[in-house]
Amino acid sequence: MFQDPPDPGYDVPARIGDPLSKVFTPALVIDLDAFDRNLMRMKRFVAARGLRLRAHAKTHKSADIAKLQIESGGAVGICSQKVSEAEALVRAGITDVLVSNQIWGEARAARLARLAEHAKVQVCVDDPAQVAQISAAAVAAGVEIGLLVEIDCGARRCGVQPGSEAVTLARLVDASDGLRFNGLQAYQGSLQHIACAEERRVAARSAAKATKTTITALREAGLSCETIGGAGTGSFVLDADLGAVNELQCGSYIFMDADYDRVSEASGERPGGMENALFVLTEVMSRPVPGRAICDAGLKALAVDSGLPRIDVPGLRYTGASDEHGTIEDPEEKLALGNRLMLVPGHCDPTCNLHDFYIGVRDGRVETIWPVTARGKLF
Amino acid sequence: MFQDPPDPGYDVPARIGDPLSKVFTPALVIDLDAFDRNLMRMKRFVAARGLRLRAHAKTHKSADIAKLQIESGGAVGICSQKVSEAEALVRAGITDVLVSNQIWGEARAARLARLAEHAKVQVCVDDPAQVAQISAAAVAAGVEIGLLVEIDCGARRCGVQPGSEAVTLARLVDASDGLRFNGLQAYQGSLQHIACAEERRVAARSAAKATKTTITALREAGLSCETIGGAGTGSFVLDADLGAVNELQCGSYIFMDADYDRVSEASGERPGGMENALFVLTEVMSRPVPGRAICDAGLKALAVDSGLPRIDVPGLRYTGASDEHGTIEDPEEKLALGNRLMLVPGHCDPTCNLHDFYIGVRDGRVETIWPVTARGKLF
Repeated sequence: MFQDPPDPGYDVPARIGDPLSKVFTPALVIDLDAFDRNLMRMKRFVAARGLRLRAHAKTHKSADIAKLQIESGGAVGICSQKVSEAEALVRAGITDVLVSNQIWGEARAARLARLAEHAKVQVCVDDPAQVAQISAAAVAAGVEIGLLVEIDCGARRCGVQPGSEAVTLARLVDASDGLRFNGLQAYQGSLQHIACAEERRVAARSAAKATKTTITALREAGLSCETIGGAGTGSFVLDADLGAVNELQCGSYIFMDADYDRVSEASGERPGGMENALFVLTEVMSRPVPGRAICDAGLKALAVDSGLPRIDVPGLRYTGASDEHGTIEDPEEKLALGNRLMLVPGHCDPTCNLHDFYIGVRDGRVETIWPVTARGKLF
Repeated sequence: MFQDPPDPGYDVPARIGDPLSKVFTPALVIDLDAFDRNLMRMKRFVAARGLRLRAHAKTHKSADIAKLQIESGGAVGICSQKVSEAEALVRAGITDVLVSNQIWGEARAARLARLAEHAKVQVCVDDPAQVAQISAAAVAAGVEIGLLVEIDCGARRCGVQPGSEAVTLARLVDASDGLRFNGLQAYQGSLQHIACAEERRVAARSAAKATKTTITALREAGLSCETIGGAGTGSFVLDADLGAVNELQCGSYIFMDADYDRVSEASGERPGGMENALFVLTEVMSRPVPGRAICDAGLKALAVDSGLPRIDVPGLRYTGASDEHGTIEDPEEKLALGNRLMLVPGHCDPTCNLHDFYIGVRDGRVETIWPVTARGKLF
């Protein structure tokens, strides 16, 4: 029904050239000017420091944005967090992917090996059993897969302990068929969200020390690290100063979010001067009583794990999200039915994963529509 | 690449007939036996009480499940929360939809009117300006759209005040071209999550009283209510006892979740005996240190707005979600790499909206794979 054949534009919330006022809400909107500035800020940063950037595509899951990061933004390739996410991006033309995560299972390892027929592929490990599975899959497919040994440099999530444990695993990788030992994964995820600047510095120094100790131990064992990957948006300036990593894995820098803004404000340090480029456009669809407006963006349009979205209009506050509604406190009665707001999401990555399209806007008009290529690619 | 033409099965995490052990993780799994029992429990309940069921499809967003609810589960039709969600379900064969929410905008009203050419369509209003837009769209399309006037019966979200405000709006609907006044929307959403049984009873009584007062006022104004819609999974037994609503709008009953379980336990009242039928299957992909296991289901596979998922295995606790990782405390060292767990999601509706497919399992094997038809249909 509706169309025969179905019009693929029917489920897209906007058309190229539309004014912002015509975009169906809620919609995931990119301020393309701010986006371009963030892209260039990071490009200049890595160039000035002599570092590589491997932009994290888990943030945006978009092949179009990944290509821009590689072609114009100084990135050597991308990170991905899941094999199916990497597959979607490689199918869309990306040719250099690090799965910056552990993977498990013969079937998944076989998919990774198949992917390596089409792109340069690397993956992280923190256990000999993973190494064995990936080696077997690489041999069966006749490909070589690059491995990074992940160390736990303070985040207490994945990773072997720095030092001798890492050396033992690196030796196994080096001795395994179909694999190439490429270096270390030394990402300290919890650094990103430490609001106290001094505390973050202490934690970053500790991560850098653990990483350097491990590099030295590997060198003594005759193993060199082509890549030492790490650093997120909240810590990349600090990590670059400390000099332990040579390949930055920032993702959120391209968009930023309300949680990063809170950390920046609390610490007085804005990482690299990055600015908000991602918004959820919403509309007031109910104005039931004085002081309260209800908008059309709730839990299914905004991830709230790191807090509710922010409204950059004095006197307005987003105070509650239900599945399809957002409650806005409006004591000064500023809002009427149909009024539109640009919400700054609490957490950019899982918010992007809720949407099918980015609506890229410049000068108040829709300039680009990019699909969220790897949305929902979970395994 | 990969396939030419692309194999659509490549992004599906399972195949019919696979044992559960072969499903790629994380995956959204339905225990079909529990699902069938929930379906029948609700069917028997509404039949015994002489009530109608209009199952809420915002929970599952699946045309297959909606059809089962209508064809086997005693439902007269479905609720949907957004126009684009309703469109996706009508395109897949559903013929009776209430958009149980306000809508705004001429373009959106035009889409709703277009939908009414293909299905019986109703929508809620709480403002004269919405009525004018929908009336104009219905007239332009030459269709009739059924309207429910939403009253705020305690949830403090959308809705006019019970009593005379509702009567004024209902009169306007009744007098508008292209519209049919069908009754009231009297859903008290916050009832669902009140853990204290007595407190919930008080709130439910207050909602029922407000609803009945409004029905009487409408009758005195010469307006009769064919439909009084309301009642969610946490309150439908109570709401049925109180007798104010005649069309139940339960959605979560078909799946349940950890938050409903917490409320049920705290209050000692399990609504209708419904049981957990929805799980996120996850796998341990890192086992870095004694006592800690990392699984592959994080924020992008599980909604955490109503709490972290539950693991029904003594000694194991899911203690932290990052984007693609879940941290599991395992002090007794039960878990090894590759071990699989069925997580009970904290909140079923937004969890389903993260996935593209339901993997229906019976006797340990994949029996059905249902797409999440209206996933991400936000506007």
